[in-house]
Formats: sequence, C-alpha cells, structure tokens
Amino acid sequence: MVEHIAIIGCGAAGATAAMQARKFNRKVEISLYNTEKYSQYSRCGLPYTISGKVKEFDDLVLMPADSWSGLNIDVKLGVTVTNIDHKSRVLTYEGPAGEGTQKYDALIFATGSENADPPIKGLDKKRVYGLRTLDDAKDLAAEADKAKTVVIIGGGLIGMETAEAFHERGLDVTVVEFLPHILLAMVDSDMAEIVEEHCRNHGLKILNNTAAQELTGTDSAKGVVVKDRGTNEEIEIPADFVVVATGARPITNLAEKIGAEIGKTRGIVTNDKMLTTLPNVYAVGDCAESTEFITGRQCAGGLGTLAVRQARVAGINAAGGDARFLGCVGAKVTKLFGLEIASTGLTEDLTKRYEIPVVKGSIKGSTKPHYYTGGKDLKVKTFFNKETGKLVGGQLVGLEDAAMRINVVTLGIQHNIDAKDLFDFENCYAPAICDTWDPLVQSADAARKRLKI
Amino acid sequence: MVEHIAIIGCGAAGATAAMQARKFNRKVEISLYNTEKYSQYSRCGLPYTISGKVKEFDDLVLMPADSWSGLNIDVKLGVTVTNIDHKSRVLTYEGPAGEGTQKYDALIFATGSENADPPIKGLDKKRVYGLRTLDDAKDLAAEADKAKTVVIIGGGLIGMETAEAFHERGLDVTVVEFLPHILLAMVDSDMAEIVEEHCRNHGLKILNNTAAQELTGTDSAKGVVVKDRGTNEEIEIPADFVVVATGARPITNLAEKIGAEIGKTRGIVTNDKMLTTLPNVYAVGDCAESTEFITGRQCAGGLGTLAVRQARVAGINAAGGDARFLGCVGAKVTKLFGLEIASTGLTEDLTKRYEIPVVKGSIKGSTKPHYYTGGKDLKVKTFFNKETGKLVGGQLVGLEDAAMRINVVTLGIQHNIDAKDLFDFENCYAPAICDTWDPLVQSADAARKRLKI
Repeated sequence: MVEHIAIIGCGAAGATAAMQARKFNRKVEISLYNTEKYSQYSRCGLPYTISGKVKEFDDLVLMPADSWSGLNIDVKLGVTVTNIDHKSRVLTYEGPAGEGTQKYDALIFATGSENADPPIKGLDKKRVYGLRTLDDAKDLAAEADKAKTVVIIGGGLIGMETAEAFHERGLDVTVVEFLPHILLAMVDSDMAEIVEEHCRNHGLKILNNTAAQELTGTDSAKGVVVKDRGTNEEIEIPADFVVVATGARPITNLAEKIGAEIGKTRGIVTNDKMLTTLPNVYAVGDCAESTEFITGRQCAGGLGTLAVRQARVAGINAAGGDARFLGCVGAKVTKLFGLEIASTGLTEDLTKRYEIPVVKGSIKGSTKPHYYTGGKDLKVKTFFNKETGKLVGGQLVGLEDAAMRINVVTLGIQHNIDAKDLFDFENCYAPAICDTWDPLVQSADAARKRLKI
Repeated sequence: MVEHIAIIGCGAAGATAAMQARKFNRKVEISLYNTEKYSQYSRCGLPYTISGKVKEFDDLVLMPADSWSGLNIDVKLGVTVTNIDHKSRVLTYEGPAGEGTQKYDALIFATGSENADPPIKGLDKKRVYGLRTLDDAKDLAAEADKAKTVVIIGGGLIGMETAEAFHERGLDVTVVEFLPHILLAMVDSDMAEIVEEHCRNHGLKILNNTAAQELTGTDSAKGVVVKDRGTNEEIEIPADFVVVATGARPITNLAEKIGAEIGKTRGIVTNDKMLTTLPNVYAVGDCAESTEFITGRQCAGGLGTLAVRQARVAGINAAGGDARFLGCVGAKVTKLFGLEIASTGLTEDLTKRYEIPVVKGSIKGSTKPHYYTGGKDLKVKTFFNKETGKLVGGQLVGLEDAAMRINVVTLGIQHNIDAKDLFDFENCYAPAICDTWDPLVQSADAARKRLKI
C-alpha cells in the first residue's frame, strides 16, 4: 500500500496531482517540492502581469502557501530535490533549512520545462530575459516601467502574448520569428497571416523568416543583429532589453537518472495511467511525453489544460485509484489585440508531416447574421481524413466567438465525428448570436461535399 | 419521376427547401407560393428592426424577389394557395393576377404558424399587435416612434426580445407572463430568475404568474387588466399599445384537407425524410411535427435552425434524393440586455413531465480565470439520465460566452455522451479566454461524482 506520495514540482501539474491524490485518499502522506519560492501560480497568466490585465502578481497564486496544511499536504517551497535513491525509495532535497530526505512509495514528476535557449551569441548579457517564472515576470514588468524598445525573439504563443503586453504598455516592440510565420505550432500559414496583419495594424513589428544572430551591447543588451533568411541581409534592431521565447525543453534529469525512459519528444515516457516506465513513478505536465489523441503518436506537453488533466489521473492512480488519460487533442487558444485565435487537433502542416491525406472546408463567414449589426469576420477551417472522413483538426480566427467555437471541434474529435456529423450539428441560432448555419457547419458542409458523404 | 415540386410558404423553411431541391436537381420545376408579399426574410430578426440593431427592413430579406429566377424557381409572392386537389395533383392559388392552377408531383408544406390568440377580451381593438410578419414589425416600429408605454402579453422568446427592443427605444415596458416565470419553454425557473433580475435591473417590468384578462379602451387599447394568479387581485396597466406574444399554432388546414395526419403537437406528422403520411407530400418548419432527439417523442417546430435543416432534407428528397433529419435537440439561445441565455436538449421541467430521472451538475463559475480582469459570472447546469448517465440537457446564463458554450452540450447530446465524457472534454484554455477546467466541465464533474461514473 502506498503510504507516501512525493511530488516534484508545484506548478499546475504538481499542485493538481497533490490535490487529486488527497481527494481520493484522505490518509496517504503527500509531500510536494518546489524549487521556486512560490506556491502554485498560473504560468500562463504571466504576460498579463506586464499589461496589467492581471492586477497583482499575487493574484496569479492559485493555491496560497499556507492553504496546503489544511489539506494535510507537506509543501516545501524554495526547495530542490537534488537526488533520488530509487532503490531505497528515498529522495534528498535541499532548501533554506538545509538538506533533508524523504521516503516515498510513489513518485510524481511534475518538473515542468525550462527555456531552450537558441544558438544566439550574447544571451549572457544583462537585460536579456525569458518569461517562465513569476520572478521573470517581475523583472519584465520593471523593464516596462523604464524601457522604450524591446525585441522579442520567438513568435510562438508566449512570445506573441508578451509582445502584446509590452505594446499595451507603450513600448516599441519587434518580434523576430525564425519560421516563415508566427504561431506555426498552433495554426497554419493561412491563419497566421491574418493574425500577423492584425497585430501589425495594431503597431507590432513582426519579422518573419528571420534569424536572431547576436545580441549587441557590452554589458547590457543594446540590440539584436538579425538575418533575413531569404536575402541573408543583416540588420541590427536596437532594443533596451530582449526577451527570448524560443520554446522549452522538458526537465527530466532526475527521472533519467533513476532510469525512467525518455521519449522522442524529450519528455518522460508515460502510459495512459501517466505511469512512466518505472512502477509507481508518474510524470505529468510539461516534463511528460504522452499520446496524441488522433494518431496515437507521442506528443509533448506544454499546455495547462493537458497538465491538469494528466495530473488528476496521476494523483488518483498514485493514491490507489484507477484513472486514465485519454490523450491530447491539443486545443490551443489565445487573444491578441482583441483577435481570438483558436486551433485544435492536428494542424494541416502536421497532417502533411504524418502523411495523413486530408480534405478541407475553409470558410470566411461572420459571427452573426449579416442583417444584424456588429457581426465580425470569422475565418474557419476544418479538415478531415480523406479516407475515413473523420475530423482531424480545426482553426478559427475572429474578433469574437472563435475560441468558444473551437470547443465544438475538440469535442467532435474526442468522439470521432466525421464531416457529415459536423454538418448535422444543430448549432444554436439567434440574430444577436449566430446565423442558422454556423460558419463551422458551413466549413464541414464544404468538406462533406468533397468527401461525398 | 418528379417533374414539378410545389412549395407552399416562402419563409426560412420554404425558401431553403426550394434552394436545396434546385441544388440537388437542375431540371425539376419548382414553384413557391407565399401569402405575404415579401420574399424570404428572417422572421427571428423582426424584433431588432424596432431597436435598430437591424437597420432597414429590407436588410432582413435574405433572398430578394428577383433572385429566384436565376435559380429557375417560379416564386409567387402575395399569392395564397386556396385549394389542393391531391387526387389529380393540382393546386389552386389566388393572387393579384387572379386565380391559377399548378400541377405538381411533390408537395412541400412550409406554411409556418400563426398567432395563437389567448382568451383575452378586447383583442380586436386598434393598437393591438402580434409580431410575426414584416408588416407587423413595420407597425410596431411606427408605434415606437410615437408611443410611451407598452404592455407585452407573453414572456416567451419573442415577447422578451420585443420587450428589450421597445425598452431600448425608450418606452416604458411591462411584460405580463401567465406562468410563474418567463422563458419557461426554454429554461427552468432557476435560470429564468437570473434573467428576470437582469431585465428588471435594466428597467423592464415583469409580472409573473399574472393573467391578462381584458384590454381596456373604446376604439384603441388603452390598457390591460391583469390578475395576479396567486392573490386574484386585479389591476389595470395603462398602455399606448399592446403586443400579444403568447405562442403560435401550426398552419395545417390545407394539409389536413388532403388527408395528411395531424399530430399531438398540432403539427403535420412527418418521418425522418420529412414525409407526411401521404406519399410525395412533405412538411417542414413550424407547421411540421417531427421527432425530439433524446426521447424520440413528437415535437413541434418553432426554431429557425430546425426549419432550415428539415427543409434541406425535404428539398433533397422531393427532388429525388435521400436525406434524413436526425431529430430536434432544440438548442435555443437569445441575448437580453447583454445577457446571453442558452439552453439545449430537455429542460428539467420536461424531464419531470417525461418521468426521466436526472442527475444534475450546477455551477456558478466565471467565464475567465479569477486572476484575469473582466471575467463574467456564468451559471451553468447540465443534467444527465440517472440510469444511463447520458447527457439530456444543459442551460447557461452569463454576460459572455454562454451561447457558444451551449454548442458543446448540443453536440454532446447528438453523440450520446455521458457525464464522464463531458468531464473528459478538453476545453480550450488561455487566461484571456477561459480557465483550465471550463465551468461546463465542472458541472459535468459534479454530476459524474453523483452518478459514480
């Protein structure tokens, strides 16, 4: 019987695992270790502490440090697990109060990920930041108070949300994206182009297909030398400070050390119980590799929604239950300058890489009937496996109701619907809300006709 | 082989049937008869011509009269079908150009519904209106220009949308509802109470559980005598004019006359091909009775979404195809003073009437994470069959993102998901959009725990 569950990491994943283990099992001992000095906070909320949409840094803390004792969970903040002797089931930790050890029966890795710094010269200069921790956000908010220009290297979700935040604070912001378009881990080029135009219209500078080469400045960063990957032309963009947001790498050193298998995506391999390849050892959230819902392929984490769902499963299982994680559909959403960008399932790019032939329905519709004032343009595409007709992905971009619509696509994927099923979807209708045939249904209709189903 | 399809009615149902028949079959002759002088317009958009959210009456016309000829569809406006000799497959019509006849092979009833006037004295006075036609809307818009007070009898969808419209035009508006709450055909009392409070806070007067007895005034209506059904107390509410919105009755006289069966709901009985009990005779939209998705019971029309979906099926089938209507889930939505009200499937009241035992998940959540400024309260409930765990209904009320969320519940019902499936739904998440566990998922979790699944 499991007497003690040790959980390494107190982000969304670790904290959720601890709470779910406790809900399932009132008696089991639970210890929780966090290298950061903060208790669970929303990492995704960090960019909004810069713009002020999150008012106080403390608002982000979802589980105050002193509330864990009420759950009889022993949380150790500012404490790093330095070693694990898995044969004797003992971990060693180090913190402000010195070193200590803890015997465990079950172990949950929720160690998250760290910035994967790109091969750019001068990243060690001052006024160069990532945005991963609450302390990073505090440093960046302080920069926003004094600086006038910033270069953000990386036009992914975090890079773009941070760019928006600094722009809202009045800074001159340039995003440098290595790939042909921003957000390509989320949407395809056709959608990314709409987002880029919108962001540029709001004053953001975006340099696509551009490699950051070197940070200039002696002590502190003063600019970024970038190279146009098409023309090979190099220019220097002046910047009072630089943010590097070029992706993340799972933190797996301890798991690796005790012999847990590391997968192709560099995450800790797990099964549908979130068990690693070692008995009674689980991994959840950004450090874990799990399964993509549609193809069954390995996939990395990186999404809060998946982290908490995996963590719930691991917490229950570690505490003696039997829960399963169904796999990652990968619904992703954000809002930039009022524009909602939403995606789920595979991107078209991914379907090509996986050699899945698809049929697409692509619609430029409106969120409301044309006769009702105030409707917004909505670009919708849904795509379907050409052989089976099954829904494999969808993307929406619009000034309203794009994000909530993606939820229908996600539920559809989770229940294996095809283009005809999505066409048969009875969307809600009222002039103030949506037309009789939702643009989502129209996109399915276009695909259904091509599929002849 | 079908050579001529005659379609009676050119609302959303009739017009859609005609267009879908044409899309399916380029050669078949199609004739379309409309008693009103207008070509297809959005009936649901009528209240918004009063408030100005629909700018011009003409904006509501979805299919201009002169565009039918391009589809080779013979539309006759201001023309009433007066008789049908179904044995010889000939209909007689009468219009501005006199009487005429048309031979047909297939017939589609899309005759809609008419106001079901309640037993109130004095409804024949001047300045008493329904809101069913474009001409009604024109009359009401003219009243809004001169009148100061209005009583609306009936707090259903049309009554409430009309009440909002007049209130926005600056009138003093009183809604008189016979039942204990407004909108009870759409939501249950708990949700209706939230809507009532919101509308009252915006200045609307709502008298629940109150029977309109008599319209006062000699020539024109001057007020409404109403009786509190609890205390039996009677008062007179002064009104410059009165709107009666107490429900509708399917128009079935012609169908009845040729021997088509009329169902319990007073609509024309149809099967999943939208065929009536007579071969080659179809009925769609408000005049048709079809099947409720969850229980398979007969259900009435009354929703534009269902009308166009049924009409598509009938149009294709009449033109020689083979399409099926999957049944009515009954997603309903509106927005009143910025508050979105959404419902789908059965109401709890209906589950009681049908003796379906249910387990409910009821949540008062927020549209966004609490740390992000600007999230709105969201009241959510989902309910599930106690024996099977299957989703049978859901309702949401909130200042944003309630309507789009109901779409997930509807798709779930259409694919027979249960409380565990809805809990396992991977909702999209971003601080600016929605929290990691959507309130919808939380409501399913509450129910799932009670169901022990």
